[in-house]
Amino acid sequence: MKKRIKKLKNQVYITSCAAVGGRKEGEGPLGACFDYIDRSDRFGKSTWEQSEAESQFMALNFALNKRKCTAMELDVLLAGDLINQCTGSSYGLLDYDVPFLGIYGACSTCAEGLLLGGLLLDSGHFKKCASVSSSHFCSAERQFRSPIEYGGQRPPTSQWTVTGAGAFLLETGCVEAPLARITQVLPGITQNGGINDPSNMGAAMAPAALDSLLTFFKESQSKPSDFDLILTGDLGYEGSRILRELSSKEGYFIDDVHNDCGLMIYERKKQGVHAGGSGCGCAATVLSSKILGELKQGRMKRVLFMATGALMSADSLKQGLTIPAIAHIVCLEGVK
Amino acid sequence: MKKRIKKLKNQVYITSCAAVGGRKEGEGPLGACFDYIDRSDRFGKSTWEQSEAESQFMALNFALNKRKCTAMELDVLLAGDLINQCTGSSYGLLDYDVPFLGIYGACSTCAEGLLLGGLLLDSGHFKKCASVSSSHFCSAERQFRSPIEYGGQRPPTSQWTVTGAGAFLLETGCVEAPLARITQVLPGITQNGGINDPSNMGAAMAPAALDSLLTFFKESQSKPSDFDLILTGDLGYEGSRILRELSSKEGYFIDDVHNDCGLMIYERKKQGVHAGGSGCGCAATVLSSKILGELKQGRMKRVLFMATGALMSADSLKQGLTIPAIAHIVCLEGVK
Repeated sequence: MKKRIKKLKNQVYITSCAAVGGRKEGEGPLGACFDYIDRSDRFGKSTWEQSEAESQFMALNFALNKRKCTAMELDVLLAGDLINQCTGSSYGLLDYDVPFLGIYGACSTCAEGLLLGGLLLDSGHFKKCASVSSSHFCSAERQFRSPIEYGGQRPPTSQWTVTGAGAFLLETGCVEAPLARITQVLPGITQNGGINDPSNMGAAMAPAALDSLLTFFKESQSKPSDFDLILTGDLGYEGSRILRELSSKEGYFIDDVHNDCGLMIYERKKQGVHAGGSGCGCAATVLSSKILGELKQGRMKRVLFMATGALMSADSLKQGLTIPAIAHIVCLEGVK
Repeated sequence: MKKRIKKLKNQVYITSCAAVGGRKEGEGPLGACFDYIDRSDRFGKSTWEQSEAESQFMALNFALNKRKCTAMELDVLLAGDLINQCTGSSYGLLDYDVPFLGIYGACSTCAEGLLLGGLLLDSGHFKKCASVSSSHFCSAERQFRSPIEYGGQRPPTSQWTVTGAGAFLLETGCVEAPLARITQVLPGITQNGGINDPSNMGAAMAPAALDSLLTFFKESQSKPSDFDLILTGDLGYEGSRILRELSSKEGYFIDDVHNDCGLMIYERKKQGVHAGGSGCGCAATVLSSKILGELKQGRMKRVLFMATGALMSADSLKQGLTIPAIAHIVCLEGVK
């Protein structure tokens, strides 16, 4: 088996980021950390898909503005979402006039974008790029489950798709006051744990998270306590419980340093989100609204960011297939 | 505006490739060049989506076998398709146990995979990777238009989605008998030409092709006659005509060296495909079944491969949006 960890040779930094969200995200524990909250969830558009697209536009715009930089300075945009044919990204970022590479990793898209962006900058071919990802509760519900107007009952293991987008600027070279450095990345291998319940994505994704995490620990000869935080994307309550238990059985006790974006973005019981948040926007907004600030301030030194994605579709489920999942890892280090 | 062409610094080669197709592709002019033709279009599976997934599995398997190499030697897989949430790739390549990065560029996916693969190998982090893309007439028809059983009439500008998959192995370093070298790449910028007719993808994609092509000529100070072939992915008859005309108006007369995979894969009138072939599988199978062999044999020296993609969805069209498109360029050179 070939080594999966890639250590970046050059200084690759996240230099700016932004998070936009909807009402529920605004009412959650991180609400005040978002750059923009749209209480209507519509972002000024008349369809949910276009609302999601607009959220990507806005997130990137905020990230660029914070860095006092224009889109023309970007070499490439890496973006993805959950909407069929990733139209949240293609329509949302259409006005930027920047080379565009569409990516698809379901809810792992945020990590895939940072991983690819990191490697592309490390190659020397690009100096500045942006990675954007999003999800929207309403566009996801009607595509993957039922239109919300149906009022279908949600089982306890179900998660609540985050309405929101996160954007990140990545730069290489001598940059002033970066948020964090990307030092290592590890691309995931798709795992099929045999779960076919679309209301239990946490269980479907936990095996992929375990595989990537154990591989990272072994290849880097590191241990959970080497990190201030091991941050999963949207395993939620159920998936986090499974990951912690399986990891512990393999000799890596992560409970003390693990948290999950899906558990951080909402007050789970009070906000009625059952097992927690999910969606491409979940990991992207938590990382950009909260975690990168902690790294910049020096309150955290090393964060292992691992977003997981369930690579199924509504059709594949109807056809009786189980849900494959993937987990990409990006190791972030503070520069203070 | 930043320079978009990226010249690869290292020797990055396509060392193996394979094409699998369905009945119509087998009956076309390139039928004998395919590695495998399934006359049932089913690839042994019971749903069209799973048939497409299996075609990806087979194409990669053929490409690996030709190189006498196993999947374990691969650092990463880059793959995408047109099915909602790219399940053709995630399910099709699930058994390979190789790090997986999902990409989405609609029908430009083949070029996006080669472009990203080339850059990732050039970074030095990866030594060997594979890029796979596919489409299937039946999975595409029922998703984007109507189930074929409806028998809807097709207008003259409509194209026929190719049933097939193409796989490419990319390697760096000293490799024996490669097919071609990837010397330059240019990522596309999404263009919106204002077309909203899903039966005229050629017209929707031509502006993107024009933008990337002109940028390539200008930045590299090259001209059409520097290439044995300028090969577009699936502009078809209509889109090719538009591209040639617009390009000529800009001072670049490409008619003598231009061809389109969508015009090569079928006998357009005899096989009743109207404006030609389309889909991720179109560019991927024509490049792998025919063009790379010509480069290897020395019958062509320089090929500018540019696959275009229409980044819309069935929903975006229903919501009245026009069709944005993108074109990624990969410059291929023979090593003989």
